[in-house]
Amino acid sequence: MLKYQQIAQLIEQKIIEDNMGQGEKLPSLGHLIDYYQVSKSTIVKALSILENRGVIYQIQGSGIFARKRKKKGYINMLENQGFTSDLENFNLSSKVVFVKIIKPTEELINNLNCSNDDDIYHIKRIRYINGQILCIEESFYLKNIVNYLNEDIVEHSIFHYVKDILKLNIGFSDKHFHVEKLSEESAQLLELKKGDPSLHIEELFYLTSGQAFDFSKTIYHYEHSQFFLQSSNF
Amino acid sequence: MLKYQQIAQLIEQKIIEDNMGQGEKLPSLGHLIDYYQVSKSTIVKALSILENRGVIYQIQGSGIFARKRKKKGYINMLENQGFTSDLENFNLSSKVVFVKIIKPTEELINNLNCSNDDDIYHIKRIRYINGQILCIEESFYLKNIVNYLNEDIVEHSIFHYVKDILKLNIGFSDKHFHVEKLSEESAQLLELKKGDPSLHIEELFYLTSGQAFDFSKTIYHYEHSQFFLQSSNF
Repeated sequence: MLKYQQIAQLIEQKIIEDNMGQGEKLPSLGHLIDYYQVSKSTIVKALSILENRGVIYQIQGSGIFARKRKKKGYINMLENQGFTSDLENFNLSSKVVFVKIIKPTEELINNLNCSNDDDIYHIKRIRYINGQILCIEESFYLKNIVNYLNEDIVEHSIFHYVKDILKLNIGFSDKHFHVEKLSEESAQLLELKKGDPSLHIEELFYLTSGQAFDFSKTIYHYEHSQFFLQSSNF
Repeated sequence: MLKYQQIAQLIEQKIIEDNMGQGEKLPSLGHLIDYYQVSKSTIVKALSILENRGVIYQIQGSGIFARKRKKKGYINMLENQGFTSDLENFNLSSKVVFVKIIKPTEELINNLNCSNDDDIYHIKRIRYINGQILCIEESFYLKNIVNYLNEDIVEHSIFHYVKDILKLNIGFSDKHFHVEKLSEESAQLLELKKGDPSLHIEELFYLTSGQAFDFSKTIYHYEHSQFFLQSSNF
């Protein structure tokens, strides 16, 4: 992690610890430079990250201010490390439906930019939040990047494993989503009825190198999921 | 608009014009400085905006690269100027259900941070995309900020009016959303059935000054709406 990213994290922690709400003023740029003992450009970059993440807003000539915090229990749509880190205050768990190695379909070849003889880890899990079903998640990992997975690993956070054990740098993601009626099969897994509402998210995850490594399809239980998204002006 | 915001727009336009896809390399920092005839710090800030918007990614020591473009027909969830600008290629229109002035409810007082004798413009519209129903939108504008609205204005883009005529600077927004079954009343307006799926978005819009001015509730037609969101690493 780069210096300005660390500083961004520290400033955000401080905002949370101090329980700052919408419109509360942060110390000035000069104070932040003194406090964190870093250069002006490091603070400026850190503030730019926090502004784009929706943590603060800046008014030229007036100062730096905290933004509204999300309501409890909402999933932050801009968190792209899986949602484990965002929901750490919750009791999250997974039931593994299967872990297998497959050859890619046309859809996977297009998304993961792989060839048709590459190996793919195909994983299906049901994820729970505080003991309630949160979603069905089907993931496809490129085996030449994530070269080992088993039931034990996927029962926990795959992203922690990818970052902390495999030491891969997860970069960014593209999400496409829409609402539809549940199929018979998905309804059964979610313990809902066929035709009930559901949010379907397709997400393609990349390493910081720009290489796609994980394509996931998630179907959320409409009664147990709610989402949050802060945008900033550009 | 500040210099680096203009440059960010120009670079993004160029990426679109050149039809650059995922992983295609942009000119180097040095080339961009020469080309746009601005300082290094202006280019660095412009690139930081584009990175956070999901338009590019940067690899230290390696260069600047384009990100995947969204599929056609998807609404960009990070566009916060209403979705008019994002969907400009579509044929968008609105049918006004009503425009009236009301006193705020408890929910509006909390969100718009106003007092109970402030006037609020309460607007309800049905919005159409290519002649199909896209959503029902109910908006609440603080009258002491958006001091005049009528049927004619709200039939078109309220945000263009707010920006171009009232000269207000729209800053950022907080979105909370979830999926639920349609009520009888909403189903009728969307020409769907009671109990059909729907995405409900509550969005609070702020001026760049940090002042909230518009609280909106939107219910999307599940068959005519799909969404896109690019996140970047922090």
